[in-house]
Amino acid sequence: MSDRHSEPKPTATYDEVMSANSDYATSFGDKGDLALPPARGFAILTCMDARLDPAKYAGLAEGDAHVIRNAGGRASDDAIRSLVISHKLLGTKEWFVIHHTDCGMLLFDGNTMAGLLEKSRATATFDGTKWANQKEEGGSPEGHHMAWLTFTDLAQSVRDDVERIRNHPLAPKDVPVWGFIYDCGTGKLLPVE
Amino acid sequence: MSDRHSEPKPTATYDEVMSANSDYATSFGDKGDLALPPARGFAILTCMDARLDPAKYAGLAEGDAHVIRNAGGRASDDAIRSLVISHKLLGTKEWFVIHHTDCGMLLFDGNTMAGLLEKSRATATFDGTKWANQKEEGGSPEGHHMAWLTFTDLAQSVRDDVERIRNHPLAPKDVPVWGFIYDCGTGKLLPVE
Repeated sequence: MSDRHSEPKPTATYDEVMSANSDYATSFGDKGDLALPPARGFAILTCMDARLDPAKYAGLAEGDAHVIRNAGGRASDDAIRSLVISHKLLGTKEWFVIHHTDCGMLLFDGNTMAGLLEKSRATATFDGTKWANQKEEGGSPEGHHMAWLTFTDLAQSVRDDVERIRNHPLAPKDVPVWGFIYDCGTGKLLPVE
Repeated sequence: MSDRHSEPKPTATYDEVMSANSDYATSFGDKGDLALPPARGFAILTCMDARLDPAKYAGLAEGDAHVIRNAGGRASDDAIRSLVISHKLLGTKEWFVIHHTDCGMLLFDGNTMAGLLEKSRATATFDGTKWANQKEEGGSPEGHHMAWLTFTDLAQSVRDDVERIRNHPLAPKDVPVWGFIYDCGTGKLLPVE
């Protein structure tokens, strides 16, 4: 296992990230003076999907709002931990839950994922209908013990998460929780009632 | 409880977000053609802090990389769920764990948070030394049952999370996991060894 714990060598991706960061720091301006609490007093919970840039799609500058992201933008226990810290300690007063079209969480279910992982940790492929492992190595049954939080109905997943947050015993009653679908085809936020 | 479950009325913040989104959608260009899997094949796990814009500080365009965010940028079970989906189903090959200076997670501990929430869900205040509730209403003991994932040593929190991810039974062995501190004062990414 020693190879697994040694420091990895920088890769092309690592160098690209460091180079982009150097450019960002060079033009950082007075952003070092921003305060810790979000200036505009709200939080967004959305998906980790690479196509989503919440700062761009919701018009956020650095310092404006908390952004919480996970696979699906789900109201997991950890997302609720983050939202409660956001309000209780850092004063946010409105929360946006934003899932999106063409989400990967619509393409599998927990049993499928656990079954794939049981055989292999390597990346699987999807043929448009089903997932298949390409090589079987290093599998683990641990996937059967994880809640993968997939869904089959996009709008309902938003409603479910808004309701879970509203009903959570640690969530304040007076914080509006807005539900949206982000349309990956148009960039538009579509309210979910 | 009916007031808690009715649809909230749009606020100034809601209108601002919708207006910014309308501008974004108008100049969306051909981003509707982006594929679901991250084009640059990596994922970032970082904090929800409002001052952090991972797309800007790491140089990401829409479609490039998964971004997972929670309070502290911690390797919670939910963050690991997201990372495993990121690699296993969507092919990311490198992961970046990025905490930051002046993090709110350094300013409290789980007992403090649970104690505050037991008395009140309303926003507390910090005088530089300790937290205090401003009004006591709607408290819940539920905070005692939540892992708040605070830390006292920033660099160690990065090392701990990198190690937790590397050692997780569902994490692939061949994915480098890089640890960083983002400096909120300068915008720079500082590697943690």
